[in-house]
Amino acid sequence: MTGPVIYGRVALIGLGLIASSMAHAMRAGGLAGEIVGYAKSPETRAVARGLFCDRVTDTAAEAVAGADLVVLCVPVGAMGAIAAEIGPHLKPGAVVTDVGSVKQAVVDVVAPHLPPGVHFIPGHPLAGTEYSGPRSGFATLFQNRWWLLTPLDGTDPAEIARLRHLLEAMGANVDEMDVARHDLVLAVVSHTPHLIAYTMVGVADHMRRVSSQEVIKYSASGFRDFTRIAASDPTMWRDVFLTNKDAVLDVLGRFAEELFSLQRAIRMGDGDQLHAYFTRTREIRRGIIEAGQDTAAPDFGRAPVQPKEG
Amino acid sequence: MTGPVIYGRVALIGLGLIASSMAHAMRAGGLAGEIVGYAKSPETRAVARGLFCDRVTDTAAEAVAGADLVVLCVPVGAMGAIAAEIGPHLKPGAVVTDVGSVKQAVVDVVAPHLPPGVHFIPGHPLAGTEYSGPRSGFATLFQNRWWLLTPLDGTDPAEIARLRHLLEAMGANVDEMDVARHDLVLAVVSHTPHLIAYTMVGVADHMRRVSSQEVIKYSASGFRDFTRIAASDPTMWRDVFLTNKDAVLDVLGRFAEELFSLQRAIRMGDGDQLHAYFTRTREIRRGIIEAGQDTAAPDFGRAPVQPKEG
Repeated sequence: MTGPVIYGRVALIGLGLIASSMAHAMRAGGLAGEIVGYAKSPETRAVARGLFCDRVTDTAAEAVAGADLVVLCVPVGAMGAIAAEIGPHLKPGAVVTDVGSVKQAVVDVVAPHLPPGVHFIPGHPLAGTEYSGPRSGFATLFQNRWWLLTPLDGTDPAEIARLRHLLEAMGANVDEMDVARHDLVLAVVSHTPHLIAYTMVGVADHMRRVSSQEVIKYSASGFRDFTRIAASDPTMWRDVFLTNKDAVLDVLGRFAEELFSLQRAIRMGDGDQLHAYFTRTREIRRGIIEAGQDTAAPDFGRAPVQPKEG
Repeated sequence: MTGPVIYGRVALIGLGLIASSMAHAMRAGGLAGEIVGYAKSPETRAVARGLFCDRVTDTAAEAVAGADLVVLCVPVGAMGAIAAEIGPHLKPGAVVTDVGSVKQAVVDVVAPHLPPGVHFIPGHPLAGTEYSGPRSGFATLFQNRWWLLTPLDGTDPAEIARLRHLLEAMGANVDEMDVARHDLVLAVVSHTPHLIAYTMVGVADHMRRVSSQEVIKYSASGFRDFTRIAASDPTMWRDVFLTNKDAVLDVLGRFAEELFSLQRAIRMGDGDQLHAYFTRTREIRRGIIEAGQDTAAPDFGRAPVQPKEG
């Protein structure tokens, strides 16, 4: 093994998009001495064995034995059971992190199962694609993406720094954040937009008067962005909404109020209200481009779409 | 002038993103003998004169005099007044088309002003960016994009074919559609998604507990797609919602019902309903990728975003 090894042995629990991308990135950078994996499904384990893990075990307990870093990459709803299973087998001084999209719920169910002397540093990479599973990973998934850490009070700063070092070596930009604030900010920038996108795609699917063929054919106009968002992993998102319930319901309530206000403006023909609203939202977009979070290319940076037969 | 000229003189009325892109595309392909432009604003006329028009006039009436093709590129709400102004000055046998996002409202206000012998063929290019104005155009905007025509009964098929020829020469895929169906399909795939995106961005903007700095910083997760949609031209979109009111209110009503059903599932903790819904919407996305309407690249085909300081 050459390269700047940061953790001697890394155990990945759950082997989907995030774990497989981490493994590819760690291998590409020589960041881990050994990568051990575990997943519930035998098929997933077989893929991981051939594709990105040095060793794959048949139980989570075996996977974490002797590991310096344990990364929980299972859906948020499965975190508690996995933590209970691995808790007694963790090496003293090991670091445990996770990649769940919700943080308070993970802290609540994971922390009680971890023995003293194990460092728990909850985390959340803001990276993903519409694909899932062990074949979907790639080494550059985290390049220039945010990876939020929500360390609890009293966590050893040296261990936080070491984990940051690994994440940055995989290309991520790391930020630290309070657990509750994380869940609220993510409800606004990610969770609620996903629910809304799912809903709009569902509406289109249900409208009998508009054939799904037409919806697909003419989807370039706004709707396509919604379908991309709405294609993410159903299990992961179910767990997000069930575990970040309060923040999501709060934002959804505000959304419904705003939407009804605009709907009323349309019904009443109040063009001034609509114009003022649309002008204001445009400013936020400008801010995002100035912050370098997206390209301003006129084709939105996408590769040209293929011509279709009319 | 070399190249396959399709119309001897083309008049563009309104000189924003669509008109300037048409002018660039027609010049690149040598598709028009002369391109004459008119816009309400003197600044816009000055830009167009230097950038993409052979001639710019101070009135719409002058611009259409002698034109073989007149393209109305003003917001839907301004179509009627412009049609009244140019009607008496149109050359017998001229073709008039428009690029409005709503078709019934345009037909209603434009058709009555056109003299017999003029061919009116309403149209709608499904192409755009978040930018507007005469400097925002580029020759490839219509490449592999749909351009819908909604010809009225009795329109000369030879004139429809000639207009199709021009649009295809600019790179578009042309489809013909009934006026009412156009307005409903677009309400589903474009108009309502835009209103929803505007709303979500507005909610984020209003939430005092989430600083707009954070919203912008972590916008990569779903929200960024909304802000892109919500950055489109406010005047154009105001007119869309005012003039396609019935279809948009219909779709919005369905959207609210669906959203409340999912919101209730979250509140009740009904994971099965959420999972089943999210699995179904994923299928539509698969259809769009198979139809070639979007790339399946894991980074969504976007250029990598720039690293930021944490």
